[in-house]
Amino acid sequence: MSFDTMLRPRSIAVIGASENTAKVGYSVLANLLAEGFPGDIYPINPTKKTIQGVKCYPSLADVPGVIDLAVIMIGRDHVLQVLKDCIKKRVPSVITITAGFGESDAEGKKLHHELVRLIKEGKITHMGPNCLGLINPWEKLNAAFGLPAGEPGHIALFSQSGALITAIQDWGASNRLGFSMVASIGNKATLDEVDFLEYLEDEPNTRVIAAYLEDISRGQEFMKAAERVGKTKPIVILKSGRTQAGAKAASSHTGSLAGADMAYDCAFERTGVIRADSIEHLFDVASALAYQPLPVGDRIVVVTNAGGPGIMMADVLEMAGLKVADLKEETKKKLAAVLPGAASIHDPVDVLGDAGGDRYRDALRILVDSDDNDGLIVILTPQKMTDVEGTAQAIVDVSKDAKKPILACFMGAEAVAPGVEILQDHHIPQYPIPERAARAMLEMVQHQRHCSRPPRVAPRYPVNRNPVVKIIKSHRSREMCEIGEYDAKAILRAYNFDLPPATLAGTIDDAVRFGAQVGYPLAMKISSPDILHKSDVGGVKVGLDNASEVEDAFELMMLRIKRQKPEAEIRGVLLEKMAAGREVIIGMKKDPQFGPMLMFGQGGIFVEVLKDVTFNLTPLTREEGFEMIRRTRTYKLLTGFRGQPGVDIEAIVDNLVRVSQLVMDFPEIEEIDINPLMVGREGDGAIVVDARIIIAKEAH
Amino acid sequence: MSFDTMLRPRSIAVIGASENTAKVGYSVLANLLAEGFPGDIYPINPTKKTIQGVKCYPSLADVPGVIDLAVIMIGRDHVLQVLKDCIKKRVPSVITITAGFGESDAEGKKLHHELVRLIKEGKITHMGPNCLGLINPWEKLNAAFGLPAGEPGHIALFSQSGALITAIQDWGASNRLGFSMVASIGNKATLDEVDFLEYLEDEPNTRVIAAYLEDISRGQEFMKAAERVGKTKPIVILKSGRTQAGAKAASSHTGSLAGADMAYDCAFERTGVIRADSIEHLFDVASALAYQPLPVGDRIVVVTNAGGPGIMMADVLEMAGLKVADLKEETKKKLAAVLPGAASIHDPVDVLGDAGGDRYRDALRILVDSDDNDGLIVILTPQKMTDVEGTAQAIVDVSKDAKKPILACFMGAEAVAPGVEILQDHHIPQYPIPERAARAMLEMVQHQRHCSRPPRVAPRYPVNRNPVVKIIKSHRSREMCEIGEYDAKAILRAYNFDLPPATLAGTIDDAVRFGAQVGYPLAMKISSPDILHKSDVGGVKVGLDNASEVEDAFELMMLRIKRQKPEAEIRGVLLEKMAAGREVIIGMKKDPQFGPMLMFGQGGIFVEVLKDVTFNLTPLTREEGFEMIRRTRTYKLLTGFRGQPGVDIEAIVDNLVRVSQLVMDFPEIEEIDINPLMVGREGDGAIVVDARIIIAKEAH
Repeated sequence: MSFDTMLRPRSIAVIGASENTAKVGYSVLANLLAEGFPGDIYPINPTKKTIQGVKCYPSLADVPGVIDLAVIMIGRDHVLQVLKDCIKKRVPSVITITAGFGESDAEGKKLHHELVRLIKEGKITHMGPNCLGLINPWEKLNAAFGLPAGEPGHIALFSQSGALITAIQDWGASNRLGFSMVASIGNKATLDEVDFLEYLEDEPNTRVIAAYLEDISRGQEFMKAAERVGKTKPIVILKSGRTQAGAKAASSHTGSLAGADMAYDCAFERTGVIRADSIEHLFDVASALAYQPLPVGDRIVVVTNAGGPGIMMADVLEMAGLKVADLKEETKKKLAAVLPGAASIHDPVDVLGDAGGDRYRDALRILVDSDDNDGLIVILTPQKMTDVEGTAQAIVDVSKDAKKPILACFMGAEAVAPGVEILQDHHIPQYPIPERAARAMLEMVQHQRHCSRPPRVAPRYPVNRNPVVKIIKSHRSREMCEIGEYDAKAILRAYNFDLPPATLAGTIDDAVRFGAQVGYPLAMKISSPDILHKSDVGGVKVGLDNASEVEDAFELMMLRIKRQKPEAEIRGVLLEKMAAGREVIIGMKKDPQFGPMLMFGQGGIFVEVLKDVTFNLTPLTREEGFEMIRRTRTYKLLTGFRGQPGVDIEAIVDNLVRVSQLVMDFPEIEEIDINPLMVGREGDGAIVVDARIIIAKEAH
Repeated sequence: MSFDTMLRPRSIAVIGASENTAKVGYSVLANLLAEGFPGDIYPINPTKKTIQGVKCYPSLADVPGVIDLAVIMIGRDHVLQVLKDCIKKRVPSVITITAGFGESDAEGKKLHHELVRLIKEGKITHMGPNCLGLINPWEKLNAAFGLPAGEPGHIALFSQSGALITAIQDWGASNRLGFSMVASIGNKATLDEVDFLEYLEDEPNTRVIAAYLEDISRGQEFMKAAERVGKTKPIVILKSGRTQAGAKAASSHTGSLAGADMAYDCAFERTGVIRADSIEHLFDVASALAYQPLPVGDRIVVVTNAGGPGIMMADVLEMAGLKVADLKEETKKKLAAVLPGAASIHDPVDVLGDAGGDRYRDALRILVDSDDNDGLIVILTPQKMTDVEGTAQAIVDVSKDAKKPILACFMGAEAVAPGVEILQDHHIPQYPIPERAARAMLEMVQHQRHCSRPPRVAPRYPVNRNPVVKIIKSHRSREMCEIGEYDAKAILRAYNFDLPPATLAGTIDDAVRFGAQVGYPLAMKISSPDILHKSDVGGVKVGLDNASEVEDAFELMMLRIKRQKPEAEIRGVLLEKMAAGREVIIGMKKDPQFGPMLMFGQGGIFVEVLKDVTFNLTPLTREEGFEMIRRTRTYKLLTGFRGQPGVDIEAIVDNLVRVSQLVMDFPEIEEIDINPLMVGREGDGAIVVDARIIIAKEAH
């Protein structure tokens, strides 16, 4: 893709350029000119000779030279024609600012399809429509109708909301964040978040990728790109719509327990994407990651000129899960040598209210050079003797060759402003309150951890696909979406899940013979394609302890069901050896964006009342399976507690991974409930007691 | 107390006034002069004729007129002498800025006690020592060594950290918060947070009380004052030290389950104190409460000029537990009449990107006048056509006679600054991101709910105090702190708790007779003052179903215990009819600041693994007791779930309230564990199965 011609064009056509200051076509041209874009600018407008002092051309065809980028902001009815002109003129990249397409009426939706067709046909790199434009401060490119481009920097930003971009730009300028790119991606007719991630991976000025998104349309591709790109360029995303009840009614446990937004959380966590929960948080984190080295560990040392804020910072660090550093004796000795007697040489290091810049500098130098901490946060409150600028300069100086991150927390406003300015000049991340500094440090630590994880390997077990193919085919031929217990278990058996010894018994004799063969207790369930809710018709009987109980149960069940459902086709009874152990649930529900999502929980009240369940996406590694189990609040109950023996957790992991493999192999499967999975003691395995599977309707 | 002379002095003595700009004595005098304090200022310094151009006096005695307030900042060794001079001169109020007292060395602690003695003797209103001073912008009083006083306003602030005050002042000035008082309360030698709450109740300029505290020393008094004062003047407190493991090792369930900071949370919630979790939050809330009317309900309407931020705001409102307003048809019609066709007339109301101030004004007027919403949040993003100042002015105008709160969320920095300035001029609370605006609105809604609660009434049951007095006395006479099961149950019986039929049987015959009398099953426990852990020595046997089992158990128990603990004094066995029902736990642990704190939880894994317990302080109302139960995550299990019958929740409440009454009546009681309380079905009551009580060592 010719992304480069869009972000670094040598020539731009401004289609719909205008002299009328109320029009977007005025602002875009004015912004391009004001920024001093060094390439060629060709305003296109059939009615003018010049616009804003620049020679104007009646159409694209009339432009003498090559055009790298066309920016379109004429009425929607003319956009398609202009796109055709672009193709004819071999314009490699186009930004359509004009609105009124997919987000609009029926006519707009029609135009949208035609637009996409043309873009693909012309192999154009196209952003929009319905967007604000594109900014690249490094190239003095402001092809947008918002604010000035701002100073160049290393944070790339793209946003689905154009209005938010102006606010972010404004904020970014005042906080001197420095952008490598600001893109308003609008309706994402073709270029979307995945394309931007892929492009930014090698974009030389970008160190951190920040985004505001309302949805992600290509979930699987997004995850692949995010996982790869995030390793070198951290990705921070503010995604809105958390509470929107977008999920359609679900027919399985898993479906009803997963919130509408759960898949996003899973996808972000797996790929190391940092989920911001406000614009503030987005940039608090992005600036720390863009301009400071990553901490190698979680031991943070605080340097402060005031006790109270030092306590607050230590508090929030601990609450965030970071460690207040345990300084070595040697470090403390060095600190004691440069600090007054009343100073605290433990973390938080209190350089006292009368500290000047040099005292801060001495303490910081010692701490940066010491290996008993992994990162520094420097607090300054504006007291009487405080040297705000000197302290800021000290931080900048020490930071220059530091191999660990230094964040600043200058508390106050006007009194600390001169210091904050120095910090911003040198891209030292600065936070007005301890909470925000601690949180940014936490995200850095977590990102470092994510990056140093071993590569994910989802295991594959030898399985027998044929029975599964057959069962799905047979259900589809009958237009049945729900696969009942008997066939669901056959599918699981083909994938080597452990199942209890079972048989379909057509007669009392068959049933009694099975009991003699496998032993007791047995469970008996009616087998009929016409009966879904077996218990409701007396079609389930458990705890059958001997042959005569089996005989009685069989006859009673047949009698009752024939009375209640005379029309039902009865195939016999399903007999199973009953398993002992602890009940857990494994489920799967397909997320429309991110594909199969697994669920784990302990059965009964733990799921029903406590909603104590966890989720993860497929394919699942063993480590991720174990993590799903460990993250339940009632995990302790599985490991052996108060004298009770632990259960076979490895066997649960095994089952989770097998479900993952099954649903990856058969995309037709929409939902699975294994409920309960009966887990024995360590080493004894786990047995699927009941299961159901739902497959998608066949696409015609 | 002569608080008024401190906050509104007509004359001030500055003891330790100096010409040396490096000294605190310079800054305080300079600040007083710079602010233009209209009263008399008397610098006291034996070595000078004038200081900073003001006539200087060698000592207090030499001052001709009356002195309302003395500010002391001489070396700590001279402070006591000056205090004596103050008493002699009948100075009603004193601020000691000098440090080096209780927070310091042994000498400092000695000086502290002497200081407190003198203050009390002289009946002086005294703030400090080790503080920054006091500011009252309404009186042009800046008796502190920090920043300028700033503009007068309606937020009173006091802080235990002096350094934080300068940061807050600086921030407050830049956000134009407007303070009615800023007090650095330092070591709180006498005046503490309770005194300030009580004084501020009638302070005419104060509408909201904001504070930073590291501890509260008089918990009970604090709660009384906060409950009363908070009804008219909302109290917002930032308390640090949440994670500090200040709690000493506890010997009871309750003690180990309550975090060090739990009592603060309980006390704040009960009294309606809003707990801020950052300085940002402190002032986000304080400014909303100080300058906007309270919402009468929780239906919030959002007005925005951009879709994305509107979605974000709706999201965070819902997540915070507020309602996105459901506008009436009539309101929508009115909105449709003044807004363009493409505008959204549902909440969030989108006035579109090209909205000027008038369009905002029209929409706001309609919504303020409509009774389908209780509060407004106005979002502005700086787009091309946006009229930042006009919109701010529209908000100010509509706000003037509005009976509901209007909060602003102008997103951006420089581009929205002129609008923000107009908003600040008129004290319209302004937040840069949706999350902070929504949170402030939430706190307003919750404060309104707190204020409209019916008065708390803790019931008192008729009880028999005498047995309790006797048992405590007898234990104290033997210097025993732990009251074992038998006596603990006697105490509870005196307070009319339901207990199972029980007896202390000395012989087999006694035991068998009891069984015949009350029925089976029985539990048997060894009764000996020398055996604490009964199960460890085979001293507990449950489920005795008939006379012969009772006989066997009795003989075996005696045999084994005599073998294992030959020296133990054996009083016999405690026999009890075993109760059936659901197990719950009720506990009490005394908090050093706030007194008895009750705990409730369901037994077994719910407490051990899930830590599913709740707390509240005494005295407890029935409603609060019910709330403790309802707030457990497993509450559903008690109400009847999946066909299981519900339990007698009223009986649990009854037990909670009785424990509350017992521990209020007997302050000697330090801890109680009722574990388990066996709760029957609705109407069947609840029975105390086991209990222990710990009393404090007698003070000598």
